[in-house]
Amino acid sequence: MDKDTPRTATLLMHCPDRPGLVAGVTRFLAEHGANIIDLDEHVDRSEGQFFMRVRWELAGFALTPAAFGEAFDTAIARPYQVTWQLHDDGRPQRMAIFVSTMSHCLYDLLSRWQSGEWPVEIPLIISNHETLRPVAEQFGLAFHHFPITPENKADQEAREIALLAEHQVDFVVLARYMQIVSPRLIEAFPQRIINIHHSFLPAFAGARPYHAAHERGVKIIGATSHYVTEDLDAGPIIEQDVTRITHRDSVGELVRKGQDLEKLVLARGVWAHLQRQTLVYRNRTVVFS
Amino acid sequence: MDKDTPRTATLLMHCPDRPGLVAGVTRFLAEHGANIIDLDEHVDRSEGQFFMRVRWELAGFALTPAAFGEAFDTAIARPYQVTWQLHDDGRPQRMAIFVSTMSHCLYDLLSRWQSGEWPVEIPLIISNHETLRPVAEQFGLAFHHFPITPENKADQEAREIALLAEHQVDFVVLARYMQIVSPRLIEAFPQRIINIHHSFLPAFAGARPYHAAHERGVKIIGATSHYVTEDLDAGPIIEQDVTRITHRDSVGELVRKGQDLEKLVLARGVWAHLQRQTLVYRNRTVVFS
Amino acid sequence: MDKDTPRTATLLMHCPDRPGLVAGVTRFLAEHGANIIDLDEHVDRSEGQFFMRVRWELAGFALTPAAFGEAFDTAIARPYQVTWQLHDDGRPQRMAIFVSTMSHCLYDLLSRWQSGEWPVEIPLIISNHETLRPVAEQFGLAFHHFPITPENKADQEAREIALLAEHQVDFVVLARYMQIVSPRLIEAFPQRIINIHHSFLPAFAGARPYHAAHERGVKIIGATSHYVTEDLDAGPIIEQDVTRITHRDSVGELVRKGQDLEKLVLARGVWAHLQRQTLVYRNRTVVFS
Amino acid sequence: MDKDTPRTATLLMHCPDRPGLVAGVTRFLAEHGANIIDLDEHVDRSEGQFFMRVRWELAGFALTPAAFGEAFDTAIARPYQVTWQLHDDGRPQRMAIFVSTMSHCLYDLLSRWQSGEWPVEIPLIISNHETLRPVAEQFGLAFHHFPITPENKADQEAREIALLAEHQVDFVVLARYMQIVSPRLIEAFPQRIINIHHSFLPAFAGARPYHAAHERGVKIIGATSHYVTEDLDAGPIIEQDVTRITHRDSVGELVRKGQDLEKLVLARGVWAHLQRQTLVYRNRTVVFS
Repeated sequence: MDKDTPRTATLLMHCPDRPGLVAGVTRFLAEHGANIIDLDEHVDRSEGQFFMRVRWELAGFALTPAAFGEAFDTAIARPYQVTWQLHDDGRPQRMAIFVSTMSHCLYDLLSRWQSGEWPVEIPLIISNHETLRPVAEQFGLAFHHFPITPENKADQEAREIALLAEHQVDFVVLARYMQIVSPRLIEAFPQRIINIHHSFLPAFAGARPYHAAHERGVKIIGATSHYVTEDLDAGPIIEQDVTRITHRDSVGELVRKGQDLEKLVLARGVWAHLQRQTLVYRNRTVVFS
Repeated sequence: MDKDTPRTATLLMHCPDRPGLVAGVTRFLAEHGANIIDLDEHVDRSEGQFFMRVRWELAGFALTPAAFGEAFDTAIARPYQVTWQLHDDGRPQRMAIFVSTMSHCLYDLLSRWQSGEWPVEIPLIISNHETLRPVAEQFGLAFHHFPITPENKADQEAREIALLAEHQVDFVVLARYMQIVSPRLIEAFPQRIINIHHSFLPAFAGARPYHAAHERGVKIIGATSHYVTEDLDAGPIIEQDVTRITHRDSVGELVRKGQDLEKLVLARGVWAHLQRQTLVYRNRTVVFS
Repeated sequence: MDKDTPRTATLLMHCPDRPGLVAGVTRFLAEHGANIIDLDEHVDRSEGQFFMRVRWELAGFALTPAAFGEAFDTAIARPYQVTWQLHDDGRPQRMAIFVSTMSHCLYDLLSRWQSGEWPVEIPLIISNHETLRPVAEQFGLAFHHFPITPENKADQEAREIALLAEHQVDFVVLARYMQIVSPRLIEAFPQRIINIHHSFLPAFAGARPYHAAHERGVKIIGATSHYVTEDLDAGPIIEQDVTRITHRDSVGELVRKGQDLEKLVLARGVWAHLQRQTLVYRNRTVVFS
Repeated sequence: MDKDTPRTATLLMHCPDRPGLVAGVTRFLAEHGANIIDLDEHVDRSEGQFFMRVRWELAGFALTPAAFGEAFDTAIARPYQVTWQLHDDGRPQRMAIFVSTMSHCLYDLLSRWQSGEWPVEIPLIISNHETLRPVAEQFGLAFHHFPITPENKADQEAREIALLAEHQVDFVVLARYMQIVSPRLIEAFPQRIINIHHSFLPAFAGARPYHAAHERGVKIIGATSHYVTEDLDAGPIIEQDVTRITHRDSVGELVRKGQDLEKLVLARGVWAHLQRQTLVYRNRTVVFS
């Protein structure tokens, strides 16, 4: 983010498709002094749904967030049955990271934060192992260890949720966190928990995807970042990418090559979320560009 | 193109950026009964230019093309200094193909036409060699041979231009046509001649790019489709793609692998043109998606 | 294939891994006057198997194919328990094509044959529909129509197998042939039937993969060429590739983009087979480069 | 590197192509008890050069490095005019990193070292700025600041070379080091200085490649890792990769997307070097797989 980027707001919305929606929203914004700098809309004809992302400069815009809500509801949201979110792009989002023992994604996320590449705050890192505490400490970040057993899982997650709330966390990144998160945590952060799965979903869902890929003899491996839902590895996909492999690659080589993919695909997924480019509808993610 | 796709029109426009443009255009369209099915806009902040592509259903739209021109000029184009094109998407475009001796791109284009994949008509094929006449005839298409020498080049091109006009050709595809086309032909089809260059431009412009790529030892080769301008291999790029090579690949292998790229990149470039997704501004191409 | 390429032979072999295999084979070849121009070996450590592909110039090589077999069996194959194939690279292979109603892969294969890109002969095209007869005829190729019903399937396939034998077909390409081929045909051409599946296997095996991909909301689609085995869509993979899609792409757009992938991935798979680069072991394909 | 990987040695060699080379070398190794676990050879027919990489287990191998040299010179290297290097794969290589002010590649390299992903030691980091000292210190590494001016450049580089020698550095990585290194430093580390250039070379050599790419309107950007030679940005390429961009991407977006490429392409180049997969010949790099 350039320092001289003008302060902006972003509106994400979807509703049943009807003629006049773009005209209606853009006229509403123009009437209140918005200078639109980015507008992307999409109509899913098979679903009959309209999706839009609009970003405008706040300088000259007449409405406060509260006033916007009231006016937009009256003029647009209620008549058109719109589901919407408004974001002040100038406020850094607060991201919690969950890890287990593998460090590659964690290093990548922390580097992007520390170097200022991402406009994000990291109030805490949570893990079910002590392994990565030194990495967190090296970057000066709080590290909370919550060992998980079948017996204590519900209690530990309740404490995690309380901690996330206490730190006003906006969203959670599972950076190769090797635990299934429970419905309670998912409900606390609907469409705000991002996971990285180390395969090209839906291929090789579940455990040990690199072993499965090697066994099947595929010529390409992939990684997938997605929002977490109760249905394991089946949440709405944000980003995927792949890399070519050959018969020469052992499972160990797949793991090595795959880790570079995981870093990249998770980072792109988080970036899309940070940029308010994502809108989930019926288990699919619209990713505005 | 699905048979039951509704009849649509596409507007491509650009102008100096000013607040209210999207609102103004979409309101104009809504007032005349347009149901917008696709809208994509782009602001190039470094150039201060606004670009937009809007597609709407013609069913229920109140304006004929002529009436649209008058009304749009008055309401939008003159006040905002807009350059615009309106296209009736239901009319198949007429494409001429120029070839020399290599057949791979020609086969690919003709297959897409003959199978009905592309809504396009091919009134004629022009070549400076007789080599590919059998391919044209096999597909039942007219083939015109214009041998080119330094002495006859101007005359032959004048005859070609007349022939293209006679056949009401909308745009020209140079499918590995190994002749430099003259300014006169370019002026007759501004931003309507598409060339395929067998390298990842601007690397390896000019002749024998695969030899140059092999000599340089690159690990990736590419192809580029672009609109033809008087500045050779420097016209606005529509599409590029690449493929990985290794030290094992001889120049012959680069040619073989590259030809698959050329077919694909040319086809994608032509498709974007056919879909009215391209807008040229200052030697760059906006390609709406 | 360059015209002045020297005449070569290719040996493909695999056996349990033991020290001295490369030395043994290369010494054997050198002793009989072979000038090796390409050698690639691979040891699958998890399987304990050794794989090798060697290509040498026939000029100066002392052994006829028959004499090679006897000498190689004695010196190498029996002591090391080697499974091997020897190919005379100068003999064009005879390829049969099976199609149904979609033409994109067929056009691509026929173009590569007719332009001389591939050193292959096409004695016949077989289809369960009449639809593509005009394409075959346009390219001057024999087209045999075998309509398939549950009742006549066994008989029709028996006739197809007889026809393939009569035409001395070396291998079969299923170019979007929408019929499951029976074990009898597979046994007649073990590891010599190549299919293109329109997904990134193992994701979206079975029917309608583009619909399934759209429903799941993936961000990348793929295609897979593989040898056909009795286990549907589960045969050894030769080649895969992918292309990026977005939420904007309807099922129809996935089909359109996917068809370009299918052409390319099938062509690469057939090319690898033609070049004797493939060796199947336990449902995985070693593809030498 | 798995802990239970057997101790191996790697031989890299090239020489004028002659029949019997593979047989000669593999017989030599077999006679001294080598169990070859990987062999890759390449003949560059246009250059008439033979290249080979062989890796074997040291357990059971009869020759010490010194004895190998003597025996190999006598049996193979002198008769065949072979240029060769022998590496003990068990010894971690010592890597120095040069940086300026951008941290993304540095973080990536240090993470791979600290996590144990790479079998490498980092005795020191050198910079012409103080900016990244905190990153080095955070990872517990020595950081040496050598400010460079036109006047002091020769002296400073002499001190750098002395420092590198003192720390027994094997190779140097320029991780976005924004200074041209002098011939003296290059001569001290021939084919052992790896640079990352932030474009798809040879396109956009020199300064500000992202600005140039934006100006030209390319649809794909790239990054290149290469060995440093006296000819700026023209050294032998080890690895390249690309990413797709659109007209929506500002120069700032190209920089952001490009940095992810730079990290990946530099890491892959360093990995190939660490694995002894690279052999330079006439400004091209053979990269064995």
